[in-house]
Amino acid sequence: MDITILSIFPRMFQALDESLIGKAQEKDLVKIDVVDFRDFTTNKQNHVDDGTYGGGAGMLLQAQPIYDAMDYVEKKKPGKKRVILLDPAGKTFNTKMAKDFAKEDQLVFICGHYEGFDERVKDLVTDEVSIGDYILTGGELPTMSMIDATLRFVPGVLGNSESTEVESFSNNLLEYPQYSRPADFRGKKVPDVLISGDHEKIRVWRLKQALKKTLERRPDLLEKAELTDEEQKYLREIRRNN
Amino acid sequence: MDITILSIFPRMFQALDESLIGKAQEKDLVKIDVVDFRDFTTNKQNHVDDGTYGGGAGMLLQAQPIYDAMDYVEKKKPGKKRVILLDPAGKTFNTKMAKDFAKEDQLVFICGHYEGFDERVKDLVTDEVSIGDYILTGGELPTMSMIDATLRFVPGVLGNSESTEVESFSNNLLEYPQYSRPADFRGKKVPDVLISGDHEKIRVWRLKQALKKTLERRPDLLEKAELTDEEQKYLREIRRNN
Repeated sequence: MDITILSIFPRMFQALDESLIGKAQEKDLVKIDVVDFRDFTTNKQNHVDDGTYGGGAGMLLQAQPIYDAMDYVEKKKPGKKRVILLDPAGKTFNTKMAKDFAKEDQLVFICGHYEGFDERVKDLVTDEVSIGDYILTGGELPTMSMIDATLRFVPGVLGNSESTEVESFSNNLLEYPQYSRPADFRGKKVPDVLISGDHEKIRVWRLKQALKKTLERRPDLLEKAELTDEEQKYLREIRRNN
Repeated sequence: MDITILSIFPRMFQALDESLIGKAQEKDLVKIDVVDFRDFTTNKQNHVDDGTYGGGAGMLLQAQPIYDAMDYVEKKKPGKKRVILLDPAGKTFNTKMAKDFAKEDQLVFICGHYEGFDERVKDLVTDEVSIGDYILTGGELPTMSMIDATLRFVPGVLGNSESTEVESFSNNLLEYPQYSRPADFRGKKVPDVLISGDHEKIRVWRLKQALKKTLERRPDLLEKAELTDEEQKYLREIRRNN
């Protein structure tokens, strides 16, 4: 996979050299380039922003440097691209979108700053994406989050192929509580069932815990979940006992 | 404000030295410390993770290094703390939560990795927070996003005090389209009204655009919005014309 990031804060992306994304780059599973679109300004001061037509507080990123940076990317890396713009008005990023992005050959992320973009920048993009109902100073941090979430679905990136499957959201259930050694830590004990060695009892306990937690915290996920007969039975039990 | 981050990837937080957060640190509006909880392991290999009781794929962060790191933080920085743990089962982060966090003196973020945490870590935290319905390799990137979103509400961090108010979500409406120079860029023109100089016309155009966009893309926000009589009138108009 080939990823290009358009940003005026290229140094922030050093964070991608660590952890899973760093390893994926070392293994050549992904190539990440950062293009500083400030290099493409045509004014003497190298400004990328200017006031807003019609008035208003703050500055707006202008179309020109971003268009010219995209022309440069297109020349360097021809071919079909998914071009993603962070915008609070976009579709909310989720696991399904991450899986979708993971199938592409080329992703381009445009990172905004200041008050926003000149609306004409949107003509360059294929996806307007929101990272959630909160506002950030720039697109850099959410872009790194999206890259991380996406790369998890690129084959070979995760060591253990099972790992993406058992985690939350994959089956629309939240994760059951997990414990590691020691069995007694500062007087806080691991539930007996988990050290019983009875695999069937453990499976049922975990399933019930996952259902209980999802019911309490994210009932909306249960509506989307395709529950088995067993799961539906336990859910009825849990509802009765609450 | 004082922020402590518990993470085994301290170098990722160099990204916080840039942009708005970097400036806030320079102005002493916020102090950010990163504590590597791997330094608190008691085993020879400095492992922070171990298998899961009851079996299962992957490794789990153990309670001990995180508890000991928190003891260290408590000793160094006594006082009331908001302790935030990233967890897909937590409450979804949003602007309201960012404003809430901005009122605290001390924030602590615990960044997970691998399959998750020993459940007993949750006894240390005041807030379990989800960053959205997607899975990341670790808590570092979303922690930086939460810090950025939070610091925007710390007085003095944003240059222009107006800026947080006009942006999306503050009034439950998405932002209207904005344009910067030139008026004609590669044949794409700025709407006439914005260069008319008629402030009242511009205000009404923007309001209608914001209402239209919110209706099309995020009708859920309109339900939460407290609309003025004028806004309700325009909304009825837009609904009629669609």
